[in-house]
Amino acid sequence: MRHDHLITATQLSRDDIETVLDRAAEIADDPPERDAVLGLLFFEPSTRTKMSFDAAMKRLGGTTVDMGSVDSSSVKKGETLADTVRVVEGYADALVLRHPSEGAAKMASRFVDVPLVNAGDGAGQHPSQTLLDLYTIRENAGLDDLTVGIMGDLKYGRTVHSLASALTNFDARQHFISPESLQLPRSVRFDLHQEGAQVREHTDLEAILPELDVLYVTRIQRERFPDENEYRQVAGQYRITPETLEDAKDDLVLMHPLPRVDEISPEVDDLPQATYFEQAHNGVPVRMALLDMLLENAGVETGGDSR
Amino acid sequence: MRHDHLITATQLSRDDIETVLDRAAEIADDPPERDAVLGLLFFEPSTRTKMSFDAAMKRLGGTTVDMGSVDSSSVKKGETLADTVRVVEGYADALVLRHPSEGAAKMASRFVDVPLVNAGDGAGQHPSQTLLDLYTIRENAGLDDLTVGIMGDLKYGRTVHSLASALTNFDARQHFISPESLQLPRSVRFDLHQEGAQVREHTDLEAILPELDVLYVTRIQRERFPDENEYRQVAGQYRITPETLEDAKDDLVLMHPLPRVDEISPEVDDLPQATYFEQAHNGVPVRMALLDMLLENAGVETGGDSR
Amino acid sequence: MRHDHLITATQLSRDDIETVLDRAAEIADDPPERDAVLGLLFFEPSTRTKMSFDAAMKRLGGTTVDMGSVDSSSVKKGETLADTVRVVEGYADALVLRHPSEGAAKMASRFVDVPLVNAGDGAGQHPSQTLLDLYTIRENAGLDDLTVGIMGDLKYGRTVHSLASALTNFDARQHFISPESLQLPRSVRFDLHQEGAQVREHTDLEAILPELDVLYVTRIQRERFPDENEYRQVAGQYRITPETLEDAKDDLVLMHPLPRVDEISPEVDDLPQATYFEQAHNGVPVRMALLDMLLENAGVETGGDSR
Repeated sequence: MRHDHLITATQLSRDDIETVLDRAAEIADDPPERDAVLGLLFFEPSTRTKMSFDAAMKRLGGTTVDMGSVDSSSVKKGETLADTVRVVEGYADALVLRHPSEGAAKMASRFVDVPLVNAGDGAGQHPSQTLLDLYTIRENAGLDDLTVGIMGDLKYGRTVHSLASALTNFDARQHFISPESLQLPRSVRFDLHQEGAQVREHTDLEAILPELDVLYVTRIQRERFPDENEYRQVAGQYRITPETLEDAKDDLVLMHPLPRVDEISPEVDDLPQATYFEQAHNGVPVRMALLDMLLENAGVETGGDSR
Repeated sequence: MRHDHLITATQLSRDDIETVLDRAAEIADDPPERDAVLGLLFFEPSTRTKMSFDAAMKRLGGTTVDMGSVDSSSVKKGETLADTVRVVEGYADALVLRHPSEGAAKMASRFVDVPLVNAGDGAGQHPSQTLLDLYTIRENAGLDDLTVGIMGDLKYGRTVHSLASALTNFDARQHFISPESLQLPRSVRFDLHQEGAQVREHTDLEAILPELDVLYVTRIQRERFPDENEYRQVAGQYRITPETLEDAKDDLVLMHPLPRVDEISPEVDDLPQATYFEQAHNGVPVRMALLDMLLENAGVETGGDSR
Repeated sequence: MRHDHLITATQLSRDDIETVLDRAAEIADDPPERDAVLGLLFFEPSTRTKMSFDAAMKRLGGTTVDMGSVDSSSVKKGETLADTVRVVEGYADALVLRHPSEGAAKMASRFVDVPLVNAGDGAGQHPSQTLLDLYTIRENAGLDDLTVGIMGDLKYGRTVHSLASALTNFDARQHFISPESLQLPRSVRFDLHQEGAQVREHTDLEAILPELDVLYVTRIQRERFPDENEYRQVAGQYRITPETLEDAKDDLVLMHPLPRVDEISPEVDDLPQATYFEQAHNGVPVRMALLDMLLENAGVETGGDSR
């Protein structure tokens, strides 16, 4: 992988993706002792992404410095993002940025010489999430000759758009299951067709479920519906229970980016198909691999004894 | 000590307690290089408990990842505690949990495979506080043939209930000193008698003070009193000053879980009896010992060079 | 440098200052493996100072424990600063304190045995900022035979007062440029004269700019002006643009403590005179040197293999 920054999943070729996933698969057993400092710049709250990058850098033998919440930062004094990242790059060997504005990571990356990873920019991209999703699929079902279902809020879910786009690099049939009001945006559907994706859309899981190797469930947010009753009815229709899974393959890989609220019932957690906690845990090796490769590219040395 | 988690002080036998305290006494001189990651999950604020666990893990040669405040976490999106701990166990080798709900730690421990330490669950338990209290008593007065006074808010103070219960493992006479409205709850008194404790209750410190080897003072909270004047009168009556201590033993061990407001006057700080800052500092070796033993039980390896 | 704590820049002799700056210049190439724990006590928010101390301690091979925000701390329960620092010194080998009250650091230092660094106490001192300012000047222009301009809010800017005072240790001509309403306070002007400083004051940059080796710009805060229009007019008059710099020396060292809002236009960032990001980055080596020397004085051992 010869990138300086990771801004979008679309910048990654199939080869790039496989290189990261290969490295992730082996890195836990052979961490490279990368004694570097990672700067955490989270302009929006995020428990799992931040903790997961934090743990990844520390498992690599390095450490982190954290800007803390925006309320306690210079941002409140009117500092621009360009200034903030240029200051913090002096404290760290690489940066992770989450920001509410789409395009923030790309803009910020132009101002810094250290590697920058986009950890979510508004409705934009969150490429390390896509990589850990792909890793989870590969570890559990492989990435060849795959039938994937993606269900829930397909209109607003950036995770879903990014994953769908990344899957076009592989030999995957994609089924999108959602209520009509939350279908894929035209632009995303158009892009997928341009990339040659094999796509079908459904309003009902039942018919397609038996064919699926992977079912990726996302949250349907209450705020999307003007009427509480309509929300309840729709949400209930797309809820996964042990009964739902009776018609699924025994080795279905059931995923969810978490946090979940009510989309997958807790009784499913003990079934062999439940893969969402494993998926969350995969954030660590995937981000270890990613940071390791970006630091390698940037010329930050490894070294166990030279710390 | 053969426990997977530490949820309550009552799960610890006298033997368990002594094993932890012995380990704590020697650990600062011979830290075991435990290169592990501790997850800090504080659903309620806590300066000293959190910093003390943080320092303990780092003194062991490991590091921590912190969920941060609840406001910036997935909890706000409606995630259950069971889901949060199952995600975070993928980032860490052990977890420390503080939560406002009694029973939260016990419930959470059923969902995770890594060791979990209860750092306070509402009105419930806070066992590492009890261990550092016992350690402080042992280091300064021994745990045999002991006369202990516990004073202040005995009705609501979980620290006090836990310590009193733990002391029944040792040969201790316990004196409880409080205003009538803040006496020990019947249930606690009953449990102590069941455990064979030697208990006496007082409304006045004066008569019993000369006999005490240890005096453990707790805060009387303003909120407990409907009337400000009544509060002032009661609080003033149980305030420790240099004058109060004139009738105490020279080697009285004066303790307080901190933070204090007005229960012990600052002039007492320089007297030889003042042991409350040492008590707070003892949180580090005791938690080092505790984490070390739990990680050992969980099979997390030590290693200086293999980091 | 034989100090236990660093409370004010004025406690440092010219010799002390040069010792720290010499150490800072070499420390990045030869970090001393100081496996210590630094306690971060920030009673006021501060992105760059906190991150910079955090990075400095970690670059030294040590780690930090953070009190977190005041809202989540025992301070809310009414604990005094004297109690807080006495508790936290048990968790750390050194402390960094920022506090809104002038004199807080000096007071706190009397209660602790570990080294304490003042990272800002209200309108008082912030000596590590002064050291990194001097370091930046020395690295870019030397500290001998120097003509320095200091511009902006000279009335309220503690950074400026501290720097001006420190410069009296060196052979520097100081020019102060500000609107009349924001001139140096009489007391500061008096002190500078007492210390033998070569001082001149101006309301206009234009005439003096060509002579300057260093121009130190500070923020003019909107809140200082009752009238928005007056603020805009004044602020605009002291704004640095590429045009402004046409009359400056080619090797002018243009500094700013950051964050900036509008005092230096972004087009200046790419000019060779722009030194403010380098200045911010210098916080790390200077604070590494400072912490290293204070820990050395306190007898905290180094050790690479004995961690």
